[in-house]
Amino acid sequence: MTLQLVGFDGDDTLWHSEGYYREAGEAFAAILARYVDLGDQRVHDTMLATEQRNLALFGYGAKGMALSMVETAIAITDGRIGAADIHALIELGKTVLQHPVELLPGIREAVEAVAREHEVVLITKGDLFHQEKKVAQSGLADLFRRIEIVSEKNTATYQRVLTEFDLPPARFAMVGNSLRSDIEPVLRLGGWAVHLPYHVTWAHELQNGLGADEPRMLTVDTPAAIPAAVARLRELARTTPQGGHS
Amino acid sequence: MTLQLVGFDGDDTLWHSEGYYREAGEAFAAILARYVDLGDQRVHDTMLATEQRNLALFGYGAKGMALSMVETAIAITDGRIGAADIHALIELGKTVLQHPVELLPGIREAVEAVAREHEVVLITKGDLFHQEKKVAQSGLADLFRRIEIVSEKNTATYQRVLTEFDLPPARFAMVGNSLRSDIEPVLRLGGWAVHLPYHVTWAHELQNGLGADEPRMLTVDTPAAIPAAVARLRELARTTPQGGHS
Repeated sequence: MTLQLVGFDGDDTLWHSEGYYREAGEAFAAILARYVDLGDQRVHDTMLATEQRNLALFGYGAKGMALSMVETAIAITDGRIGAADIHALIELGKTVLQHPVELLPGIREAVEAVAREHEVVLITKGDLFHQEKKVAQSGLADLFRRIEIVSEKNTATYQRVLTEFDLPPARFAMVGNSLRSDIEPVLRLGGWAVHLPYHVTWAHELQNGLGADEPRMLTVDTPAAIPAAVARLRELARTTPQGGHS
Repeated sequence: MTLQLVGFDGDDTLWHSEGYYREAGEAFAAILARYVDLGDQRVHDTMLATEQRNLALFGYGAKGMALSMVETAIAITDGRIGAADIHALIELGKTVLQHPVELLPGIREAVEAVAREHEVVLITKGDLFHQEKKVAQSGLADLFRRIEIVSEKNTATYQRVLTEFDLPPARFAMVGNSLRSDIEPVLRLGGWAVHLPYHVTWAHELQNGLGADEPRMLTVDTPAAIPAAVARLRELARTTPQGGHS
């Protein structure tokens, strides 16, 4: 069994993203601090609860964030927030939608190196319109055999992609920063994973059911280390007996 | 040259959609009427201008509509709109996102009949998350060889889809309600089209550059008439000389 297909996540794996959401969240808390003395953590927790409650309707992305900010702000201030400040929250959403696409240092070279040995695909989650713009601005689109923009990354999503490629999970590895979205579902299916932690992670993405030791996952601390990690997984895939996944 | 692939639009072609946006728009105007005496048409025009200005950032769909409603309401009322009413605008967006998926009468039978003679695909525009839910709830997904959820329907979009199918436009027909999104770009490429007008159309979708007489388009007034129209286009495609498109 050899590793054939390698998937790359987009946000916070190929290009910076969460930092822009973080900045918006801090500006949000600063606006609310003019109305209530709750403390930033309480504001962030309330916002997270609103966002998670709205996920089933809004999905991921900056438009849903902006709508959840407006809802949260009205609730937290008991309706005292002014219209100009509500407009400022929508502008925070627009700022996130317009942030420049900055690649992680060394990621282009890492994708190119992996692409010399495997087929590579981009599997990115979020708002279709925003993700398409980021893919286009990244300048990386031509490196990928296929670009999948999906609304959620769970086992069903990866299974669908693998079925379209007619590939068993044991021949697939995913590279990404989110244990919840990029790693856990792929390991559950019997695939492989390279975890590249990002320096900040949205609280929602921290929630996962992985154990302390996942034998089919390698962790790297820089994009430059991805090709060697994939090569190591390829060797593991070659020598691991079939059906041996957890 | 024979017709091989037939594309179907989703919103207002397979299932009702615009009516729900219309209802939200009327509720929006009713809320604003409590603050200003502009008249509904002026409110709708201002909202349309906001939405079109925001399209390049938000793309299509109910989340962008809700954000544009909040922006428009703050501008029209000079910031006098209350927080409870702003929250009501977000709820209007949520209502659109939760509307039941009701098929147009006879559309399932029409798709089935066309699918007996051609490959059929669903090409629908809008918010990925909401469109996926509508496709799933429609119960029609299994009829289509492929489901393409796209952020915009222009010649580049249809060209990309046709390239993936390795198909010249002259072997493709699109069935849909929007002259702007479903018909014009396909005819521009040299394809064929069946226009099924819906009883209401978003002003943005009315804008198109089609002439009074488009020889490669047929218009039908009910889903039941689609299969015969496609058969007629197939006959036209068979007898039209190559390169004869406008």
